[in-house]
Amino acid sequence: MSEVRDKAAQAKAAAQIMNRLTTEQKNEALLAMANALVAQQASIISANTADIDRGRANGTSESLLDRLTLTPDRILGIAEGLRQVVELADPVGLTLESFERPNGLRVEKISVPLGVIGMIYEARPNVTVDAAGLCLKTGNAVVLRGGSAALESNRRIVEVLREALADTALPPDALQLIEAPSRASVDEMLKLNGLLDVVIPRGGASLIRNVVENATVPVIETGAGICHTFVDESAAYDMAADIAFNAKVQRPSVCNSMETLLVHESFASKHLRALADRFLAANVELRGCERTRALLPEAALASDTDFATEYNDYIMNIRIVDDLDQALRHIASFGTMHSECIVTENEENAASFLQRVDAAAVYHNASTRFTDGFQFGYGAEIGISTQKLHARGPMGLPALTSTKFRVYGSGQIRG
Amino acid sequence: MSEVRDKAAQAKAAAQIMNRLTTEQKNEALLAMANALVAQQASIISANTADIDRGRANGTSESLLDRLTLTPDRILGIAEGLRQVVELADPVGLTLESFERPNGLRVEKISVPLGVIGMIYEARPNVTVDAAGLCLKTGNAVVLRGGSAALESNRRIVEVLREALADTALPPDALQLIEAPSRASVDEMLKLNGLLDVVIPRGGASLIRNVVENATVPVIETGAGICHTFVDESAAYDMAADIAFNAKVQRPSVCNSMETLLVHESFASKHLRALADRFLAANVELRGCERTRALLPEAALASDTDFATEYNDYIMNIRIVDDLDQALRHIASFGTMHSECIVTENEENAASFLQRVDAAAVYHNASTRFTDGFQFGYGAEIGISTQKLHARGPMGLPALTSTKFRVYGSGQIRG
Repeated sequence: MSEVRDKAAQAKAAAQIMNRLTTEQKNEALLAMANALVAQQASIISANTADIDRGRANGTSESLLDRLTLTPDRILGIAEGLRQVVELADPVGLTLESFERPNGLRVEKISVPLGVIGMIYEARPNVTVDAAGLCLKTGNAVVLRGGSAALESNRRIVEVLREALADTALPPDALQLIEAPSRASVDEMLKLNGLLDVVIPRGGASLIRNVVENATVPVIETGAGICHTFVDESAAYDMAADIAFNAKVQRPSVCNSMETLLVHESFASKHLRALADRFLAANVELRGCERTRALLPEAALASDTDFATEYNDYIMNIRIVDDLDQALRHIASFGTMHSECIVTENEENAASFLQRVDAAAVYHNASTRFTDGFQFGYGAEIGISTQKLHARGPMGLPALTSTKFRVYGSGQIRG
Repeated sequence: MSEVRDKAAQAKAAAQIMNRLTTEQKNEALLAMANALVAQQASIISANTADIDRGRANGTSESLLDRLTLTPDRILGIAEGLRQVVELADPVGLTLESFERPNGLRVEKISVPLGVIGMIYEARPNVTVDAAGLCLKTGNAVVLRGGSAALESNRRIVEVLREALADTALPPDALQLIEAPSRASVDEMLKLNGLLDVVIPRGGASLIRNVVENATVPVIETGAGICHTFVDESAAYDMAADIAFNAKVQRPSVCNSMETLLVHESFASKHLRALADRFLAANVELRGCERTRALLPEAALASDTDFATEYNDYIMNIRIVDDLDQALRHIASFGTMHSECIVTENEENAASFLQRVDAAAVYHNASTRFTDGFQFGYGAEIGISTQKLHARGPMGLPALTSTKFRVYGSGQIRG
């Protein structure tokens, strides 16, 4: 049996214990995990140093190495994250529906764990702990497949966490790490119907595309975000500029940042020059449509490919539109149904935008950067779903549950 | 552009109108559809006759031809089904969550249509109308791909329905039928990410397997049901016999019928002979484990393959088990997480069974045949989901919706 299948089977066996644990038992286990991370930080940092050294020898960029690096402070922060998950309400075991049928059957719809969750993700080792904490809190077993750049760190972290679980009611086999760094191990995970109940990819566009295109296990697609801010004719200049600037510049590398600014032509003729100067001062490269370039000669011409690109960088497209309808058509053509914003003082246009744009989150007069489980007050985030099934937008703990009907009878048969 | 892509693109364009319709507009359209079916029944029956004649010439079985046949009475029944969908509550546009954040952002989670639904199904032309009614009622566009055996019937039905829609607010392009009978058209549908939001297969095991294995579009898996009834030591004989008999014999061809009877050894030693005779009298073929055959010499030996087969027929496996735990292990090994039943007077065992069996519906002292949207009082059924994402068990109208966050700000940006 392969490592992947073997570990998934162990996780599945553990899942049958997981779904019977009490909230208290799960919380005790999470606290034990948090304590163990802090107690064992020296060995974790030593493993992490091996990853960093190998990365540096392989020419990994310093910014990526920084994201990969664990320090005592960062480990404290990661452990604190686990303790915060302890504080969250347990979404398992809730009665979501309850009714009695005319024949006397009593039906209850109960929230239950999903079962075994496969997580496929990249570099940062903090995701290993986050994902473990969220999956275990919700009564699931989890099979983690992190990036090879963090393999030594992940291996030691999971070892520490499993050792901590050995003294709790939570079976250590509920937490599995795939150590084979080959792409084949990902491909094998994607086909483990019957062992994995869902696969959640977290990472760049190519990782997610591979999962969506090759998985036969159900997938929760996350991440890709080509987000727009539409500045309408009636927008207040300062608000529009602040929101657009925040959406692009506050953290360009994330999925809820803006890639394309859509500007109503009459707003553009008055304000685009000043607005653009603010982005240029922050070293944002501008690419624009022909009408944009008439006002901003320094902008490169934006192609349809540019409009369809998630830059995750200090690059921004600008398109001048005739009206709301043209903005809506652009978003329908190029958006990824993640987060979309209208800045306007016109309530009718705002209502129309919020109604007609098909996206996980639609904003009136606020930055798209708020699409986030913590910003929404969920206290956790597994990822941001960009599909429409099961969960859409920021996913908190309930996104890691399914349901089950319990039916109580007294001998009923169907006529 | 291929027929499949072309029609899916038309459906997607129509979906952008669909999601803005009022409940009244959708209901008027459904009533117009129902009236048109009755008014145009002669031409529908004529098209259906062509299907039946072709089927008979090709040697299609009489039972299948019967399921395929439309009569004036059956068309009245199908139209009545549409009128019943009109009466159901519209699950779109509901505020599912509403909260304000400390920074003043107001967040609403609203139910919205899924968008464009692909339905892939087999023979019976009534599914064409059912699926159309349920998808349109929930504000979705739908691309139907029915079985080739009913092609002429489906073509005429969809023509009639689209003509009826032309006089309503509902865009006729929201209802599309793929007419190419080739398997290639199914395979193309399964990869239409960006045009289809979900694919729902309804039909036999091989149809569903093809969809699950090849779709890159999200799937709601339906149907496969290897369901068990476990008769515990303390079960009352009459109740156990009635429930097991109903689960197997009342309609063996459907997914919630029983395939395997698990019997506690002490119940078996007292009652299995009498119980088996009841099934034999109904011409049910019995296959049993070794211990079963010691009591029922006429039973064939059941192999693991038998235990893993959905017969959908007058065939039943019997296995004698030592206790509840062995029954649970059998169900975990061979069940398809559809519907599972325990018959017992022991409340502790009942609670343990309902807690530990991982299935869409778990029953205490009632037939598994009740796993059905109408039996649960949902007034409709798109199918019975056997996956854990999005929907599990009988799916009513809410299973055809997604959600969207609407966020109202006053210039909030992220710090």
